Amino acid sequence: MRAMTEPGAELAARAARCAQVRATTVALLDGLEPEDAQLQSEPDVSPPKWHLAHTTWFFETFVLAPFLPGHQPVDPRWAYAFNSYYEACGPRHARAARGLLSRPLLREVLAWREAVDEALLTLLSGPVDDEVLRRVELGLHHEQQHQELLVMDAKANAFAQPLRPTWRPRTLPRASAPPLAWCDHPGGLATVGHGGEGFAFDNEEPRHRVLLPPFALANRCVTNGEWAAFVADGGYRTPGPWLSDGWAWVQQQGIEAPRYWLRDGEGGWLEHTVHGTVPLDPDAPVVHVSGYEAEAFATWAEARLPTEQEWEAWGPREAEGEGRFLDDGLWHPAAATPGEGLRQRFGDVWTWTRSAYGPYPGYRPAPGALGEYNGKFMSSQWVLRGGCCATPRDHVRVSYRNFFHPHQRWAFSGVRLARDTP
Amino acid sequence: MRAMTEPGAELAARAARCAQVRATTVALLDGLEPEDAQLQSEPDVSPPKWHLAHTTWFFETFVLAPFLPGHQPVDPRWAYAFNSYYEACGPRHARAARGLLSRPLLREVLAWREAVDEALLTLLSGPVDDEVLRRVELGLHHEQQHQELLVMDAKANAFAQPLRPTWRPRTLPRASAPPLAWCDHPGGLATVGHGGEGFAFDNEEPRHRVLLPPFALANRCVTNGEWAAFVADGGYRTPGPWLSDGWAWVQQQGIEAPRYWLRDGEGGWLEHTVHGTVPLDPDAPVVHVSGYEAEAFATWAEARLPTEQEWEAWGPREAEGEGRFLDDGLWHPAAATPGEGLRQRFGDVWTWTRSAYGPYPGYRPAPGALGEYNGKFMSSQWVLRGGCCATPRDHVRVSYRNFFHPHQRWAFSGVRLARDTP
Amino acid sequence: MRAMTEPGAELAARAARCAQVRATTVALLDGLEPEDAQLQSEPDVSPPKWHLAHTTWFFETFVLAPFLPGHQPVDPRWAYAFNSYYEACGPRHARAARGLLSRPLLREVLAWREAVDEALLTLLSGPVDDEVLRRVELGLHHEQQHQELLVMDAKANAFAQPLRPTWRPRTLPRASAPPLAWCDHPGGLATVGHGGEGFAFDNEEPRHRVLLPPFALANRCVTNGEWAAFVADGGYRTPGPWLSDGWAWVQQQGIEAPRYWLRDGEGGWLEHTVHGTVPLDPDAPVVHVSGYEAEAFATWAEARLPTEQEWEAWGPREAEGEGRFLDDGLWHPAAATPGEGLRQRFGDVWTWTRSAYGPYPGYRPAPGALGEYNGKFMSSQWVLRGGCCATPRDHVRVSYRNFFHPHQRWAFSGVRLARDTP
Amino acid sequence: MRAMTEPGAELAARAARCAQVRATTVALLDGLEPEDAQLQSEPDVSPPKWHLAHTTWFFETFVLAPFLPGHQPVDPRWAYAFNSYYEACGPRHARAARGLLSRPLLREVLAWREAVDEALLTLLSGPVDDEVLRRVELGLHHEQQHQELLVMDAKANAFAQPLRPTWRPRTLPRASAPPLAWCDHPGGLATVGHGGEGFAFDNEEPRHRVLLPPFALANRCVTNGEWAAFVADGGYRTPGPWLSDGWAWVQQQGIEAPRYWLRDGEGGWLEHTVHGTVPLDPDAPVVHVSGYEAEAFATWAEARLPTEQEWEAWGPREAEGEGRFLDDGLWHPAAATPGEGLRQRFGDVWTWTRSAYGPYPGYRPAPGALGEYNGKFMSSQWVLRGGCCATPRDHVRVSYRNFFHPHQRWAFSGVRLARDTP
Repeated sequence: MRAMTEPGAELAARAARCAQVRATTVALLDGLEPEDAQLQSEPDVSPPKWHLAHTTWFFETFVLAPFLPGHQPVDPRWAYAFNSYYEACGPRHARAARGLLSRPLLREVLAWREAVDEALLTLLSGPVDDEVLRRVELGLHHEQQHQELLVMDAKANAFAQPLRPTWRPRTLPRASAPPLAWCDHPGGLATVGHGGEGFAFDNEEPRHRVLLPPFALANRCVTNGEWAAFVADGGYRTPGPWLSDGWAWVQQQGIEAPRYWLRDGEGGWLEHTVHGTVPLDPDAPVVHVSGYEAEAFATWAEARLPTEQEWEAWGPREAEGEGRFLDDGLWHPAAATPGEGLRQRFGDVWTWTRSAYGPYPGYRPAPGALGEYNGKFMSSQWVLRGGCCATPRDHVRVSYRNFFHPHQRWAFSGVRLARDTP
Repeated sequence: MRAMTEPGAELAARAARCAQVRATTVALLDGLEPEDAQLQSEPDVSPPKWHLAHTTWFFETFVLAPFLPGHQPVDPRWAYAFNSYYEACGPRHARAARGLLSRPLLREVLAWREAVDEALLTLLSGPVDDEVLRRVELGLHHEQQHQELLVMDAKANAFAQPLRPTWRPRTLPRASAPPLAWCDHPGGLATVGHGGEGFAFDNEEPRHRVLLPPFALANRCVTNGEWAAFVADGGYRTPGPWLSDGWAWVQQQGIEAPRYWLRDGEGGWLEHTVHGTVPLDPDAPVVHVSGYEAEAFATWAEARLPTEQEWEAWGPREAEGEGRFLDDGLWHPAAATPGEGLRQRFGDVWTWTRSAYGPYPGYRPAPGALGEYNGKFMSSQWVLRGGCCATPRDHVRVSYRNFFHPHQRWAFSGVRLARDTP
Repeated sequence: MRAMTEPGAELAARAARCAQVRATTVALLDGLEPEDAQLQSEPDVSPPKWHLAHTTWFFETFVLAPFLPGHQPVDPRWAYAFNSYYEACGPRHARAARGLLSRPLLREVLAWREAVDEALLTLLSGPVDDEVLRRVELGLHHEQQHQELLVMDAKANAFAQPLRPTWRPRTLPRASAPPLAWCDHPGGLATVGHGGEGFAFDNEEPRHRVLLPPFALANRCVTNGEWAAFVADGGYRTPGPWLSDGWAWVQQQGIEAPRYWLRDGEGGWLEHTVHGTVPLDPDAPVVHVSGYEAEAFATWAEARLPTEQEWEAWGPREAEGEGRFLDDGLWHPAAATPGEGLRQRFGDVWTWTRSAYGPYPGYRPAPGALGEYNGKFMSSQWVLRGGCCATPRDHVRVSYRNFFHPHQRWAFSGVRLARDTP
Repeated sequence: MRAMTEPGAELAARAARCAQVRATTVALLDGLEPEDAQLQSEPDVSPPKWHLAHTTWFFETFVLAPFLPGHQPVDPRWAYAFNSYYEACGPRHARAARGLLSRPLLREVLAWREAVDEALLTLLSGPVDDEVLRRVELGLHHEQQHQELLVMDAKANAFAQPLRPTWRPRTLPRASAPPLAWCDHPGGLATVGHGGEGFAFDNEEPRHRVLLPPFALANRCVTNGEWAAFVADGGYRTPGPWLSDGWAWVQQQGIEAPRYWLRDGEGGWLEHTVHGTVPLDPDAPVVHVSGYEAEAFATWAEARLPTEQEWEAWGPREAEGEGRFLDDGLWHPAAATPGEGLRQRFGDVWTWTRSAYGPYPGYRPAPGALGEYNGKFMSSQWVLRGGCCATPRDHVRVSYRNFFHPHQRWAFSGVRLARDTP
């Protein structure tokens, strides 16, 4: 017999969280018109409308269809349109052609969301199979991942057109960066991976011990000002500090600065942000650099990137307050406050690590279509850690493993330096 | 001193025609949502919104800016976005990225059109330089060309997505096709090219004599039913009837039927149209075939394509009534009515000719940016003649030269057979 | 009953010609090592060894196999390797991979040639079916075409590697070019196409009348010096004189001079030739320019390219002496000698015409595999006329139609200007 | 003052080893004609002649030029042609165009080798700077790596052409494979990386401790017979067991079996080998599979790939006799002999591991151009271990890290399964 949860305070809390996460996604559309929500500026990017629809498809396919008796999809053809990569769920619309889905219209997608939300709340009025609760929880975390993707994608879409529409007001003041300093770690046996009570993705498990060498991490992220010095020193013009694949990428793509930097015509730099094109803030952490760039910068700076184990071994997020996250509104990463210890570890920019994204010892993907979630991407990507300004608060945890190919840089990705110690 | 036209009946007629043509373009949007108007399903296709904006840019750049004192463009950056290919007008947005222009929004473009229309009417309230009248006339014919392109493009956009939205209601009844028969022409000296009073593009001139061999033309266009027989006979699977470039195209693209044909799963065919996906009408002229396909079909049928001179030498459009055109609403090409002589010569489907698109003897392009209009496309394209269901009535004339690359088939292009006679 | 030719003087002459043409091909290898004969520097180019083998395959497939009783191919798999494009002869090795055929070795191919030559002479010792004579004649003209291709290809191969081996000694002195002058033609009815006794390809027929406008041709070809002035005037940097496709080609390929020009580092030009890299001769005809470049130059020079009918209407090659041809050794095109009338019409450089390569009125390809010879290339290519330094003497005739795509320029292609006259 | 080695027994041994390794490379040409030695069947492959020249360039650039007074290169332009990827040594010929270097001829390269060998022996007649000895040693190991590449490349070149020349005689008998069994390892702390006296590449260091989970390895490699069962079970047609990138590769490339398998037309398989196309041996280890295929097979078999640490922790090569290596002649991998313990660990096929190729903790590349040797390839590649039939005996050591991209499979790469144990 299957475990069930009866109506009560716990179920009510679950339903409330469900409504809150779903509403946050819609709120991210503020400032986007139907035409904006349609855009796909490059194959890696998805239209914001697609994110709204795909996250809804997830709940309809994995929760409502199997568990809500009598549920009928609004339009069965939408399953084809909004499946992302779940082979077990059948064929699907080509990823690079998501921008061609003018139908369903944005207003139709929003109506679909409302219908699905209503059905979810009906289901969560209980009693409810515990498998439903597990899937709803997974669906909400999946949706939160797409919230961050939606922000990344909308930023890329705005940049791809000559008028570069401004999207959100700037809300945070600037701050200055402390001098670079090194914080030592003695190495030895450490335990990494998710082990506590809360939710985690399968790729954060199992928790296991690792052996670390002695090392040091920089007290803060690399700043725009430091990166500008790298550019001025010919960092993008000499192959010396680059990985072979990275140098080929620089030359083929004509890369000469982080993704959203623009020359101001007088020797300085501007930066495209969600609140417009503004002068580059030299004290803010550099953001939108690729793994190749991060690696080259580190080599140029006579340092290296940390491994994901080194980053994680430093310990959990100690206290609230080190950043403001997606549900509070978007902001440009702030500079670190001066003081002791590592700053800017959580919620400013994602930190590239030199760790290839792979399975932990003993890793096993979940069975069925949901098992396609993380494991099948475990090749040729690098791990990033820590979360950024667009990351939902729930995802800013010490065991969370983000991953991108080393040439990608439309995420809010930055750099913290590491080095060996004797 | 420049020739001027004073206010009066002629100017009023010009202004009325201007308002009518401009309004027809906007009327074509019926049934398209802002998201639909944003789509670019492939590099050859432009978003409907882009056509609305580009035709407006044409009047603003070539008429209002030089001739209406004090005229200011709504937004000077739009000139970059909506220039098509006029090198003399400066750099421009990449053609393949037109679908990424979410801004200006559709409603902003429509407001821009209204402002420009108002300024044009102001200018045409006279007295007015005759050069203005010449440019307005060219601009209106240019706009009419884009009306047809807008229909072609919207059809392609609807086909590129899984839901394939229906756009216009079907209005015309079906009709049966008469048996194929051959109509003889004695050959000899003929005169071709535009020679009369009305407007013509530069590529229709100068009028000149040509020497024709004796030949015959089919009494009607090739039908869907005849084309289905070609498919069933392995027409797309054996290289025999194909040009070398054509066969390479068939194999690389995996072509196996006209562009919008879909198998019905039971051995028959459906056709994607602007009024939905419908069973293929065997009596209607085949449409959306490439020049390569047209050539291969003709060879298979032991005939050939006509030259553009042969087609034109048959004489002008004799009477109204042989079709209904864009300003009357869209319709699928109707089958020919039985009777004597050539039918379906005007307004059903564009007829591929075997003539490479080149300059007539003595051709000279106009000076300046407007001279980029036709001449610079005179390589590697083939001429089509006659007009289709989406062609404005004004453009259905005997000297009109349409042109596409032989692999293109998103135009309403069909086939009339020709053959040599002893 | 089939027509037969009995042994005698005519058959002996045929056999002698056969031996002579076949020996000329092998003689072209002088200066090429087995490794050189293996090279394919780009998909358009074929290895010299491949030409030796393909022309041999032609005789084995179309002459020996059907007509010499008991003939066995040396290796039946070679038919797959050395078929060029005859679909009717079955599948074949990919064109772009011809450079990967290390086997058969060059010495094996030469031995194959000897065996086939011997069998041909046996067959021609008669009595022999007249169809054999027709096919041998076609095979020899086909082989002569490949002689010219072999020279073009070996030149391209030498250029593609850093050491750029010199291949043939320079044999001809330089000469100065006369001033440019225009020679008028009254236009009117003219007859073009092959009509005489000798051999012609199917695309030169049927002979037919055309109507020409009054026009003028330049008295000589465009020189390197004139072309250098075009380059210096920014000819490759401004879109004005270019066809749209041509300008796209210039920008995508980074074209800035004729194919084999090299900057000398001091503001002048060198030229890669079969006898080494030498200073550019300003009086020699420019060579290795594409159709796009030819058209742009003509527009820049306020002239145009001739049509193939205009070129041909000027009349046949009047006398020997206007060039030295392939069987006499290779030479760089010489400058025109001063004097009356058109010079350099035959045998210096191929003249680009503005005529798209298509069928003459009433054209019918030969039946069977041999019918694939010319007709199926009749799309998107342009006609060139006149022959070059590498053209066998037999092919320098007034009706000969050479053809290339307008972006190609590894042939010895140059320019003669034309213009309209009142 | 720099350390020097005086003439004596040690130097004589060094010189003898130098002569022996250099001669082995030339001996590998047996069976290859000049045309074969010129081939580059795909960008990853280099012509055998190029390997002969590049290894010679290495000694001339890094040993003779700086250390042998008065040494002059045979031709200074060859440095451009035969530099592989050393950015610090200046620009170089494009990798994908190595097959276009007909010059220098094979016989010229062989003469170059002799001249360089002679100069090396002169230098090694001493007294000699110890840095020279270090560089010669590195150069010889570099040359041995290219010996294996030369074999891989020549095999690929022979396969790319229709005649598929046989190259080496078959020398080894077939043998049957024992049943699959699992060998347990308790996990815990292990030490990996090079630590002994002999030569090792920089990427094998520093030696360091790692923490391993309990695991098991298969007693032998996966066989052709087992792989054929995977194919027959639809292994290449269902996305289930594949990584996302791997499945995309399978679909885009149309992969349906290991690289050199050919269907025999009766439901079975043939295999292209250096000794011809032969029936597939079901007991031999599968070879020429990509990392993606290896991973998919392991998932299908309900196992996984080992990590490189797991593979290495099993201990060094215990005894001679487990294979015959390059200097003994080429052979197809033999099946494992039955018995206890792991078999086929060394010298049969390279074993794909699931470890991304990256730096060991504390890794530092060598300074200068020679530091470009290994470190800059540390992204997106996977590690392989163990050596194959074409690996020189010196390189078959427990710490050797080979690496390829997961889609590559022209190396002699195979699979040993691993799994977690409780």
